[in-house]
Amino acid sequence: MSTARAASLPALTQARAPLTREVTVVNEHGASEVISIPAERPLTIYVDRRELVTLMTLGAMPELLVLGYLRNQRLIRDVHEVESIMVDWEVNAASVVTRHGIADIEARTAQRVVTTGCGQGSVFGGLMEELDQVRLDPDARLTQAQLYGLLNAIRLQETTYKSAGSVHGCALFRDETMLMFVEDVGRHNAIDTLAGWMWLQPPAQQGGADKVFYTTGRLTSEMIMKSAQMGVPVVVSRSGITQMGYELARGLGLCAIGRAVNRHFVCYTAPERLVLQPELAASRLAAT
Amino acid sequence: MSTARAASLPALTQARAPLTREVTVVNEHGASEVISIPAERPLTIYVDRRELVTLMTLGAMPELLVLGYLRNQRLIRDVHEVESIMVDWEVNAASVVTRHGIADIEARTAQRVVTTGCGQGSVFGGLMEELDQVRLDPDARLTQAQLYGLLNAIRLQETTYKSAGSVHGCALFRDETMLMFVEDVGRHNAIDTLAGWMWLQPPAQQGGADKVFYTTGRLTSEMIMKSAQMGVPVVVSRSGITQMGYELARGLGLCAIGRAVNRHFVCYTAPERLVLQPELAASRLAAT
Repeated sequence: MSTARAASLPALTQARAPLTREVTVVNEHGASEVISIPAERPLTIYVDRRELVTLMTLGAMPELLVLGYLRNQRLIRDVHEVESIMVDWEVNAASVVTRHGIADIEARTAQRVVTTGCGQGSVFGGLMEELDQVRLDPDARLTQAQLYGLLNAIRLQETTYKSAGSVHGCALFRDETMLMFVEDVGRHNAIDTLAGWMWLQPPAQQGGADKVFYTTGRLTSEMIMKSAQMGVPVVVSRSGITQMGYELARGLGLCAIGRAVNRHFVCYTAPERLVLQPELAASRLAAT
Repeated sequence: MSTARAASLPALTQARAPLTREVTVVNEHGASEVISIPAERPLTIYVDRRELVTLMTLGAMPELLVLGYLRNQRLIRDVHEVESIMVDWEVNAASVVTRHGIADIEARTAQRVVTTGCGQGSVFGGLMEELDQVRLDPDARLTQAQLYGLLNAIRLQETTYKSAGSVHGCALFRDETMLMFVEDVGRHNAIDTLAGWMWLQPPAQQGGADKVFYTTGRLTSEMIMKSAQMGVPVVVSRSGITQMGYELARGLGLCAIGRAVNRHFVCYTAPERLVLQPELAASRLAAT
């Protein structure tokens, strides 16, 4: 059974490349120092030998990024439609082979929407319409204790950000358990990578209803959109929210929590999903 | 003379809309509070009645944003080619009328490159090639005192960020004098807005050689690219730099300064453009 399923999952390369490089800088004291900066690479996606798009990425998990990108762009509806994703950093290319091709890909990638900075650079047309069909599990809840557990897990996570800065982190949680963490120079890439990862899980675990999406970046319209498309009813951000993000989340009944650091947060929308335990706000942080 | 020039500059609407809205949130103590969040609106650009792209923007200076977008995408080579830009927030549309149309606009907007989050969402093809022709003034310099003056001006600037967060700020300086400041939900919009503003200045003041570009956002490849295209040889960021941003800046001899807050900074590239005055690093900040 699991073999049968595994057999029909895409074949993926495991292309890896350094995520940081050291550079020598001059500081305000006129002294030289060596610091790390994050990598940033172009990755051109070819679908059935047709060039689709070039993403700028840190390059941590390029195969999952490509899979999630195709998923979140609604170009691929079923992971089993993808036969293989081969990434080659020698030529900065990802070659995707589908089992039956992508119907009218020309038309579906024609309309261009440039979303807010930090948001997916180019959302092909029609995503907004699809949101009408999104139904988030009305019973999904997160307790304040679970939220604090989640934020503590993020705080303890070893990251490229800590060593080199200038990257966004995204994570997927079940309650306070971190299932997956990824960083990228573009946070739209980070969430796409999570979407790709979700598609590779056993069917019973692919749903978003029992999951929480965390991002270090702002909750723009597009981050809310993608979370909703992934069926994830709760999003948590270290940063704030934009007006369209707010209105979308409210319309979807998606619980958007921002400014979430240590014991602090604000719940922007769907507060009924957040089980408040205000007494915890005063308690001390777990020692690291 | 100025009348003649003015006569040939584009006619621009002055469309304005609220930049923030208040929302009621629930905090970690279970208490409700009212906070401001930044606006985020779609703005669909029509060039000679042909739909080009939809930008998500704060909406502070939409006419300058559209002009700068067309400039930085190299779709318009001369500001005088633009007859008018009419923005109507009732329909979230910017109608651009050119004097002679845009040659082969179809072909020139066909190639899509999704740049790093926070970078311009969709840079149409060919920009990289053009960088080979960029020549930055080899004599441009910035003193550490001017850098500190610049950072102090930024610190004192009244901003939507201070009231609502979740926006990027960009500014254009001559030495330590702030010429223009703009914020947007996407910092690619903010720098495009600066590019649009520059094009409306008297010819003698349009050049970038004597200017410094400041951004609160990261120095990605694309921010370096746009600065170079605008002829601005020094960029300063509150944040860090990515590897492609670093390599581009080094190749261009563009001075990239990051982590610039108060008295601190690191100079990543072209340090010969930065006149170090380390003795200033120790001196106290001007009182606000």
